Amino acid sequence: MKLRVVTPITTVGFACAEQFAPYVRTDTELSHVAIERGPASIECALDEALATPDTVAKIVEAERDGVDAVVVNCMGDPGVEPGREAVSIPVVGPCEAAMHLASMLGHSFSVLTVLERLRHRVEERARRYGVRDKFASARAVNIPVLELDGDRPAMIAALVEQGMRAIEEDDAHVLIFGCTGMFGAAEQMQAGLAARGYGGVPVIDPIVAAIRLAETLVDLHLSPSKRTYPAPPTKARCSSE
Amino acid sequence: MKLRVVTPITTVGFACAEQFAPYVRTDTELSHVAIERGPASIECALDEALATPDTVAKIVEAERDGVDAVVVNCMGDPGVEPGREAVSIPVVGPCEAAMHLASMLGHSFSVLTVLERLRHRVEERARRYGVRDKFASARAVNIPVLELDGDRPAMIAALVEQGMRAIEEDDAHVLIFGCTGMFGAAEQMQAGLAARGYGGVPVIDPIVAAIRLAETLVDLHLSPSKRTYPAPPTKARCSSE
Amino acid sequence: MKLRVVTPITTVGFACAEQFAPYVRTDTELSHVAIERGPASIECALDEALATPDTVAKIVEAERDGVDAVVVNCMGDPGVEPGREAVSIPVVGPCEAAMHLASMLGHSFSVLTVLERLRHRVEERARRYGVRDKFASARAVNIPVLELDGDRPAMIAALVEQGMRAIEEDDAHVLIFGCTGMFGAAEQMQAGLAARGYGGVPVIDPIVAAIRLAETLVDLHLSPSKRTYPAPPTKARCSSE
Amino acid sequence: MKLRVVTPITTVGFACAEQFAPYVRTDTELSHVAIERGPASIECALDEALATPDTVAKIVEAERDGVDAVVVNCMGDPGVEPGREAVSIPVVGPCEAAMHLASMLGHSFSVLTVLERLRHRVEERARRYGVRDKFASARAVNIPVLELDGDRPAMIAALVEQGMRAIEEDDAHVLIFGCTGMFGAAEQMQAGLAARGYGGVPVIDPIVAAIRLAETLVDLHLSPSKRTYPAPPTKARCSSE
Amino acid sequence: MKLRVVTPITTVGFACAEQFAPYVRTDTELSHVAIERGPASIECALDEALATPDTVAKIVEAERDGVDAVVVNCMGDPGVEPGREAVSIPVVGPCEAAMHLASMLGHSFSVLTVLERLRHRVEERARRYGVRDKFASARAVNIPVLELDGDRPAMIAALVEQGMRAIEEDDAHVLIFGCTGMFGAAEQMQAGLAARGYGGVPVIDPIVAAIRLAETLVDLHLSPSKRTYPAPPTKARCSSE
Amino acid sequence: MKLRVVTPITTVGFACAEQFAPYVRTDTELSHVAIERGPASIECALDEALATPDTVAKIVEAERDGVDAVVVNCMGDPGVEPGREAVSIPVVGPCEAAMHLASMLGHSFSVLTVLERLRHRVEERARRYGVRDKFASARAVNIPVLELDGDRPAMIAALVEQGMRAIEEDDAHVLIFGCTGMFGAAEQMQAGLAARGYGGVPVIDPIVAAIRLAETLVDLHLSPSKRTYPAPPTKARCSSE
Repeated sequence: MKLRVVTPITTVGFACAEQFAPYVRTDTELSHVAIERGPASIECALDEALATPDTVAKIVEAERDGVDAVVVNCMGDPGVEPGREAVSIPVVGPCEAAMHLASMLGHSFSVLTVLERLRHRVEERARRYGVRDKFASARAVNIPVLELDGDRPAMIAALVEQGMRAIEEDDAHVLIFGCTGMFGAAEQMQAGLAARGYGGVPVIDPIVAAIRLAETLVDLHLSPSKRTYPAPPTKARCSSE
Repeated sequence: MKLRVVTPITTVGFACAEQFAPYVRTDTELSHVAIERGPASIECALDEALATPDTVAKIVEAERDGVDAVVVNCMGDPGVEPGREAVSIPVVGPCEAAMHLASMLGHSFSVLTVLERLRHRVEERARRYGVRDKFASARAVNIPVLELDGDRPAMIAALVEQGMRAIEEDDAHVLIFGCTGMFGAAEQMQAGLAARGYGGVPVIDPIVAAIRLAETLVDLHLSPSKRTYPAPPTKARCSSE
Repeated sequence: MKLRVVTPITTVGFACAEQFAPYVRTDTELSHVAIERGPASIECALDEALATPDTVAKIVEAERDGVDAVVVNCMGDPGVEPGREAVSIPVVGPCEAAMHLASMLGHSFSVLTVLERLRHRVEERARRYGVRDKFASARAVNIPVLELDGDRPAMIAALVEQGMRAIEEDDAHVLIFGCTGMFGAAEQMQAGLAARGYGGVPVIDPIVAAIRLAETLVDLHLSPSKRTYPAPPTKARCSSE
Repeated sequence: MKLRVVTPITTVGFACAEQFAPYVRTDTELSHVAIERGPASIECALDEALATPDTVAKIVEAERDGVDAVVVNCMGDPGVEPGREAVSIPVVGPCEAAMHLASMLGHSFSVLTVLERLRHRVEERARRYGVRDKFASARAVNIPVLELDGDRPAMIAALVEQGMRAIEEDDAHVLIFGCTGMFGAAEQMQAGLAARGYGGVPVIDPIVAAIRLAETLVDLHLSPSKRTYPAPPTKARCSSE
Repeated sequence: MKLRVVTPITTVGFACAEQFAPYVRTDTELSHVAIERGPASIECALDEALATPDTVAKIVEAERDGVDAVVVNCMGDPGVEPGREAVSIPVVGPCEAAMHLASMLGHSFSVLTVLERLRHRVEERARRYGVRDKFASARAVNIPVLELDGDRPAMIAALVEQGMRAIEEDDAHVLIFGCTGMFGAAEQMQAGLAARGYGGVPVIDPIVAAIRLAETLVDLHLSPSKRTYPAPPTKARCSSE
Repeated sequence: MKLRVVTPITTVGFACAEQFAPYVRTDTELSHVAIERGPASIECALDEALATPDTVAKIVEAERDGVDAVVVNCMGDPGVEPGREAVSIPVVGPCEAAMHLASMLGHSFSVLTVLERLRHRVEERARRYGVRDKFASARAVNIPVLELDGDRPAMIAALVEQGMRAIEEDDAHVLIFGCTGMFGAAEQMQAGLAARGYGGVPVIDPIVAAIRLAETLVDLHLSPSKRTYPAPPTKARCSSE
């Protein structure tokens, strides 16, 4: 099985295929590509909008390359919907995958996002994906995307702090990382929560959830419905080029 | 007052400032611009995605030109959310304006869109705008956007037919055109409905509703909330250019 | 265009045509009338119920006088629904107009009402108008309607205080005055909020929103749906008179 | 125990105490009063609005007369909310009582109302009472209130017909009469349904459900919450009288 | 009329027929039975699951004994749904009865349950019964079921404390006991609340509400809908016995 | 990895480990066990209730046997909630897994269940799992569980027929088998739909979806939240044994 992760930002080195290796099955071949035109990171609607066209191009390219499924590496799920129209293979967004996985693991979930300004966008996404009844809250660690990696202990401390508040104040039963830049910290965070008396609370790493879902869809020969995502009508789409 | 209509498609001649003149106040100066990069028409998520970046650019340009408010000329409201982040003047989408206006005029509304494939997208939009409880249905006339203008009587006949079915079968109390390409047909359609026994059913022309809302917002010194649409953080956004 | 504001209380001098002059278009002729039978102010369900019959009578009278649209001057929207049945011209309620306008300006809105006892009634109204998903909270300034005008600075201070709490504690992105007696204070309140670090939060003055909506409906030849508000069947209605 | 039924219409002979006798407990003393000012029947929002002031007066009078609980004899529940503010004894509306009783008896309910024009008002009422999720549909028998009594077999035939359609087409599991003028027909209707193969479908007679609820509330010393229905502030309420 | 209370736990002496005597009508003959196989008390999903089979057996037995209606004596309503399939007489759950009664008495209700761990289960139940819009919160007194009776003053103090917090912090307008082991304390609790300034807040004793509802259903010849609860198909059900 | 499928019915030969072999990963060891006490098949609430105790016992046994995750082989998901309390390993229900998987694949889903009587139970389950907004309908093939296997071509024909109606009449974009006895028919059904012009509609085989989800949860070291499913308090649970 061939999977491809498309990172919808232009910052070099934000992600690479190697880091995902521990999370794919041994018979899965995972490739990675970042977009070439778009924002340095995704932290607002404008960033998502500018990231989308090249993300869709990379999704189309992946299908042409014989890839079996694509995962978009951003919690805004940019390009997932138009990408599903443009190809026939599964296209998976980590936010959608994580919110549904969380919904299956408990009564309610909270999302720990990077910036305050994104909180209401997370709530809208829960509504968009049909799981608003399961959404407890979005909380922010107040660290920009590109600074998450600079001080991992500080990031984890902030995640544990906001996670505890989500549990106590918002009645969250499951937690989700709100940025794929928090990748790889689930185990440490669960340990941090347990050390403070909050054991047994699942912490979902969305990009990992998305990768596993992509593998499952390929195994089961399932792709997004063509009634929801029919192929785009033929027409001119970039007249000035 | 200066308004600008931004048409988010590249088809030359689809819209022009003159046609909107009867719908603005005498002291309103309306200008029009179409995007230069993007799809020929908007009929799917991919079209919306590709139309968005240049639409936002035109919105930013409008503010720089001293325009007081911008209306995006498409029922998909492409570019409205990122555009609101990028500027401080009101940015109005016809779908949002029409759905809220319809909600104020009756128990429920239906949207008469162009193609079957767009029906569920209209429903998602009603949910997105917080008026899902008012949404009765979306029905399609099955005429592509760029063919609407070719045979206006056929378009109106199809609108009347689907409008009657929305009233009878879906309990719609108010009707909304599902494409700004249906512009100007509200009066004829209301007459057509009345002739068939369905008088007293408001028919909303979304681009007109959006223009009037834009004027109102400028009058009242109201712009979209900066808590929902804060200015984008400074960063590189198109690294390859 | 002829508009009429109907004030559904019997307190002489609560409102007059002159005060609305700055908010209508230059070609709009605005008249004002108060009811003669009913409560001194509206602060509960009983007040609304007793205000309604004469409010409807004034709405019917307005249509007979050749008025083009009526605005009811109270956030309880008394008489709006039966009034719409009784006439063919637009009848606009400030609560409905303000809630939908707020919904278009941001993720969520709070209403700053006069008394604690009205808070749940505001929430019911948001549900009634189909925008419960957009409703963040109702907060009270704890000043009775007829005392609002006695100490305007105190009123504005209380509005700013409750507005800040709505933003911080209830995640409100847009604010609405909860009583038309707060009329005219939007600009000062926005300035007060900005001075405390809450710039960019729209404050909606409901009676002004209602007046503008009435003008728009007349312009667009739109009236409330007769499927929602059919003309009342002919019958005796006040047998003892 | 003393109960009073208040009939909120002015048509003489529409209801009387005797007819309710079989439905009260032997130790319950039931009195009846009709309003003196208001509509001949209730078939629209205007009728409800005009019926309300005198209905509230009759509710206040009942409390003064030492009555233990009041039932309003109309499916529009006119006067129930302001009446609850005005008195401390239970005030029960048949629509609210019937919808909650129906919700406890099955997955979903439909209401069989008199006129098409009332269908959406019934739906709004289900939302108002918090049981929209249980509401299957409202269907009309198309017989005006004051003609229900003229041809009872025709009324029952129409109820059975619409009840069967509600079961088959709208997935109704429980049925509710939509007008208290259908009083007394539940048994016949259940028999009619059973004869056509629809046994086991409860049919709720709302005024009977309301009377029983009133008895229960008196027994349990429960009245509507004064946080929802606080006593009205003291003020002038009918300045012209 | 013959009612039977089925207590779905095996703890001897938890409940008896005599204690319910003050709450049934003089012509009602109330019997009581506890299950013989199942948990000592019900405080989790596992307890409910293990209590259910014998509870259903007792419900079937009641019908065979000529009982007119059954009330299950637990706020988890165990066995109510399968019991309704298995018999034709009314089967009433106190949680369902109390939540609907509360919904009719005010804007919103809170449930005061025994343990924190049950709070989300109460919310799910409100959703299950179709009254999620009326649900304000669930709060816990943190006293296990079987210890409620040991120190009644402590139980009542804890109920008053959590009731006040539900009113102040969660906007509850009506309160419901979250365990039938709190039986009989409503009057004292209402007095306790009134003494602290929270008069006029109804407190519902669910088992009493359920008993009264059962009497009403028998009087009205109403049973749960056989479309929701059809008789189980004939088949082997306990193959190992 | 060790998985165990627990079949919560007593019919010998309904399922076996071998049949699931093609759907597990090569490194997964799958065992199967059926309950010994309970119904022959599950077609109503009573069947679910009677199946639950022994299903939980089998779940507990699985954990004691060192199994990594359990899948319950029935679309009623009996025993899943109490089982999650009783153990620390993942317990997966096919209905929950399938509904969330379907929600990620398209705008809306329908469930094709065995009997009419189960339709409303499926809807309740969609609400329970937080995806009611995604639920289009439940339709029945009208074949009892234990007859599904007798005539597979008839079963598939009925599934295709009801699937087409779900797509056309209920706007379903994704389909789910409503009984795990339909296991293995997804490919044939997708082909049948495509042959009738309904290509691109995913058909989900719930037991397969559940198995894959179980594998994913084990891989990711995720179990259901102990805040939702805390370990049961210690107490006597089967006093008569």
